[in-house]
Amino acid sequence: MGRVIIDMSPSLDGFIAGTGVSAEQPFGDAGLRLHRWLGLDDGRPEESDLQAAARMFETTGAVILGRYMYDVGIDKWGEDGAFGRPCFVVTHHPREPLARGRTTFHFTNESISAVIARAKQVAGKDRDVLIAGGADLARQCLATRLVDELRLHVVPVLLGEGTRLFDRAPPGTELELLDVSTSRNATHLVYAIR
Amino acid sequence: MGRVIIDMSPSLDGFIAGTGVSAEQPFGDAGLRLHRWLGLDDGRPEESDLQAAARMFETTGAVILGRYMYDVGIDKWGEDGAFGRPCFVVTHHPREPLARGRTTFHFTNESISAVIARAKQVAGKDRDVLIAGGADLARQCLATRLVDELRLHVVPVLLGEGTRLFDRAPPGTELELLDVSTSRNATHLVYAIR
Repeated sequence: MGRVIIDMSPSLDGFIAGTGVSAEQPFGDAGLRLHRWLGLDDGRPEESDLQAAARMFETTGAVILGRYMYDVGIDKWGEDGAFGRPCFVVTHHPREPLARGRTTFHFTNESISAVIARAKQVAGKDRDVLIAGGADLARQCLATRLVDELRLHVVPVLLGEGTRLFDRAPPGTELELLDVSTSRNATHLVYAIR
Repeated sequence: MGRVIIDMSPSLDGFIAGTGVSAEQPFGDAGLRLHRWLGLDDGRPEESDLQAAARMFETTGAVILGRYMYDVGIDKWGEDGAFGRPCFVVTHHPREPLARGRTTFHFTNESISAVIARAKQVAGKDRDVLIAGGADLARQCLATRLVDELRLHVVPVLLGEGTRLFDRAPPGTELELLDVSTSRNATHLVYAIR
């Protein structure tokens, strides 16, 4: 059965971006520090990082993005649109789909539950739906209680302030650690939501 | 060389207590959920939990506590005072020390840096100073940049709201993961602060 998965890279103090987020600096003053494990910002991925990165997409059939992530990302994702799969962009302003190579972006203002249902259908019953960000979308998805798995790449840095990954998550949500692996630049934690 | 160590049990979303904290419910509506790994709340510690609990005190020469933690804990800690070591309670209202078995509580309104220095002196050069809580004390200690190690027992639950462990930590604090171990009820992470 395909799963619904949130996959994000927070700092140890729980921020997925620093302060001063803008189109030029989508992660604010955190820069690419939170994505060094992916080989950005002069990082050198280790074996566990490469496995965590591969896992992000190997069973993914569809992706859900927030509108802000799309806006700041689309010019950087190149001619292939980076994801190589159907992507659903949650926005107040739906419009015609945009194709970039193997990636098609669908813009929807349906409810989060409806978007997840549609993404599951498009992914097919054996492939996963990946919720790639940002934090506001992740929060809304958690609130639907339709998320099956949390994959966190916890980066060994404290940012102090910025955009929090977890804000008003559904209280009392019990998790089960399925896997942990470590590298110099991240602790990769996979949790099932019970 | 003795280290200065913060040791705490946050939920995956970063709370060390839920809402509704009171003398009767020191962890609010989280109850003892965050301390199940220690054998409380019907928990059954696994080997990794026992090791993490033992590590909390085996090299500890002195303990620093916030006043609130002391106030809600003192009646529960029994005739031995639980810690078995000199404890420094940071308070606005200093008073005479209180002895409970092998534990002596010293009440101080000195600056956090001065309290850490005094605790280090009492611990001796080969033993550690343990900062046991709460969150406000941990925050003040981090701000001094005198903390060497963070030991987090991350509990697989989302609380949604409550008392955050990390709030305005010193931005850009780089960490190094020294050890990780897991159990059903906690992921034990040990970080050095660089």
